[in-house]
Amino acid sequence: MNIDKANETVVARMKEARPVLKRVVTAREAVPGMRDNLLLHAGPPIEWERMSGPMRGAVIGGLIFEGLAKDEKQAVGMVEAGEVDFEPCHEHGAVGPMAGVTAPSMKVYEIENITHGNKAYSSLNEGYGKVLRYGAFSEEVIAKLRWMNDVLGPIINDALSISDGGMDIRQLLSESLHMGDEGHNRNKAGSILYTAKLAPLIAKVVDDKNVESDVLKFLGDNALSVLNPVMAACKATADAGHGVEGSSIMSVMARNGTEVGIRVSGLGDQWFTGPVGTPAGLYFDGFSAADASGDIGDSTITETAGIGAFAMAAAPAIVTFISGTPQMAMEATQEMYQITVGEHEAYTIPVLNFRGTPCGVDIRKVVELGITPRINTGIAHKEAGVGQVGAGLVRPPMSMFEDALDAFNAKYGGR
Amino acid sequence: MNIDKANETVVARMKEARPVLKRVVTAREAVPGMRDNLLLHAGPPIEWERMSGPMRGAVIGGLIFEGLAKDEKQAVGMVEAGEVDFEPCHEHGAVGPMAGVTAPSMKVYEIENITHGNKAYSSLNEGYGKVLRYGAFSEEVIAKLRWMNDVLGPIINDALSISDGGMDIRQLLSESLHMGDEGHNRNKAGSILYTAKLAPLIAKVVDDKNVESDVLKFLGDNALSVLNPVMAACKATADAGHGVEGSSIMSVMARNGTEVGIRVSGLGDQWFTGPVGTPAGLYFDGFSAADASGDIGDSTITETAGIGAFAMAAAPAIVTFISGTPQMAMEATQEMYQITVGEHEAYTIPVLNFRGTPCGVDIRKVVELGITPRINTGIAHKEAGVGQVGAGLVRPPMSMFEDALDAFNAKYGGR
Repeated sequence: MNIDKANETVVARMKEARPVLKRVVTAREAVPGMRDNLLLHAGPPIEWERMSGPMRGAVIGGLIFEGLAKDEKQAVGMVEAGEVDFEPCHEHGAVGPMAGVTAPSMKVYEIENITHGNKAYSSLNEGYGKVLRYGAFSEEVIAKLRWMNDVLGPIINDALSISDGGMDIRQLLSESLHMGDEGHNRNKAGSILYTAKLAPLIAKVVDDKNVESDVLKFLGDNALSVLNPVMAACKATADAGHGVEGSSIMSVMARNGTEVGIRVSGLGDQWFTGPVGTPAGLYFDGFSAADASGDIGDSTITETAGIGAFAMAAAPAIVTFISGTPQMAMEATQEMYQITVGEHEAYTIPVLNFRGTPCGVDIRKVVELGITPRINTGIAHKEAGVGQVGAGLVRPPMSMFEDALDAFNAKYGGR
Repeated sequence: MNIDKANETVVARMKEARPVLKRVVTAREAVPGMRDNLLLHAGPPIEWERMSGPMRGAVIGGLIFEGLAKDEKQAVGMVEAGEVDFEPCHEHGAVGPMAGVTAPSMKVYEIENITHGNKAYSSLNEGYGKVLRYGAFSEEVIAKLRWMNDVLGPIINDALSISDGGMDIRQLLSESLHMGDEGHNRNKAGSILYTAKLAPLIAKVVDDKNVESDVLKFLGDNALSVLNPVMAACKATADAGHGVEGSSIMSVMARNGTEVGIRVSGLGDQWFTGPVGTPAGLYFDGFSAADASGDIGDSTITETAGIGAFAMAAAPAIVTFISGTPQMAMEATQEMYQITVGEHEAYTIPVLNFRGTPCGVDIRKVVELGITPRINTGIAHKEAGVGQVGAGLVRPPMSMFEDALDAFNAKYGGR
């Protein structure tokens, strides 16, 4: 077994992947294996008893949104009675930021990797503040989700339906990485690019001027509008490299607030997990590290695909949001070249003389060099119902990579 | 006379200036001193006989647009018969990119510096390709100008009229400099920010869906949409520092394709001029340096106000358009700190640890250090009627700064 060659194949497939946003569709109608009593969640598998506060809050909100429960008490009762199934987004070709709770009736983005034909899904982004993905579930949170589902999602879908084949997210990311984004925690340029590209289409498909204005304002004012299509694009990209016999490339990295888990291309669908860290970063007014939940969300699919913290040298302004210095942002990218196998030609970093972003984490290098992947992330409040309290930086535990490497060596007999 | 103190006053006023886009209005109705037989142009004063090819082309196009001439021959005849007056934009509180030809019936942006109350004007941006400002005047050029005047301009004005006090261009630039723009030759982020901010307003004021879609597409697809409001904002900023007794700060720098001219804050409205250089840069397919016009345009008002080439460290991706390396972009900004008096706190450069851009060129430093200001610029074809052929870098001649310093010393008796 030539592991290096298998890894090259994986990274080549990830670089060839061309994720295109095709439509917005109800999860039940498109996400593989979605069913009425199923909530998808971020990270590796987890049961209610071990769920973190924000994950529990999002579950409660998801059940209320879905119309299955009228309030927190009823939702918790249903869960404790075993009436709700929980499965990772990643086991359904999907990804969700933070808690990642995705209910059957929710509208989701559908991304197709038009090179290899595989698809991936992600919910619509709610913006900042009190939002479900950070574990908030008050009436305003649910009301916004309903508006997104009934108004925003269908309008974006109608707009995409008159586009020329959808929106090329690889192209959009390629541009936004030249505009100070890293694609995970800073999507400011990408989100206005997304808005500006959708606007002429939205103009054609909406009759009510006020509704149209609201939709354009919601998309344009939310510096994370494009995060979810980007995450699904990265999922479609990473999936293109998953399941290659003999490859030691990490194809999934995701956190549920309690555990972080990875999958490895050559090791099928097995999860390798470890305890989450707590991000270090900057907190919103009135909050501190004592309020922080453990690391949570599927958004590390961006780092898995070679952007996010791996592309931080392209996004020095991000340090105003996550802490640190522009020099540290540069070093983050430089360090990630050490544990990756390739460089993504479509995602280049101007300040590094247009070098491609580090792409394809080799778990062997992680363990050999003692360097775990860097992650940029939002920080949720540790209790259900509160929401985002800051943003920062974190790394996953080394033990998980060691476990994965043991399994890899057991299967493939070492290098 | 304390020159340093006068210069501090100038730079303080430039930094306090808060340019806000207020409305789009017909030049005749708002631009001070505009009259029916007057065409404004870029740079210092020039007569027809000495005008460069692109300037002549734009004059011809301007007269056709204005309905004063039906074709090139008639336009040239009018000019040669002395029926047309030419005066610099800068002598009318206006600025225009490249040829900068502004006719009385043209719609212009009105910017108000709400700190000091002064106003400045600039035309609407036509996008890339065959455009008047590069000296093209074919039917398609004129047709686009008419659409911009009759459709685009009024819609932007209607949108601004329902905004909350207009659009804060200082704020927009502050954001776009964190998104890889330098505000002169790279306005990609600023232009989509501009589009995204206008879109929810445009949605409310346009009835025809197709018209609305066309307008949003025109603004969003043109990576220079916001250049003209930015230029007028920089003019309003520089004007806030003009006319301070004893100051040796450059308050205007502009080129007409034949000569480049500057004005100095403490020397009133006198122009100091010298021959233009020819930019060195990258050429579009089919063109080379042999096709290039001399340096042209009022867009150097951006460098005058402390952005453009002075902020190039913020925009490393620009080198794909103007030639050079990201390292050179960094050095350009570093060098400009040597000839400037202040740093603009609102315009910061992440990669330089959020240092403010170099702001306020002291002509004494230029001459003493032998360092002329850097300029990023588009390159026009040297003949009338062709258009843009590339983009690059240039510097103005030192002789002009020496002449200005002689006049300054004559008036103020040296330092």
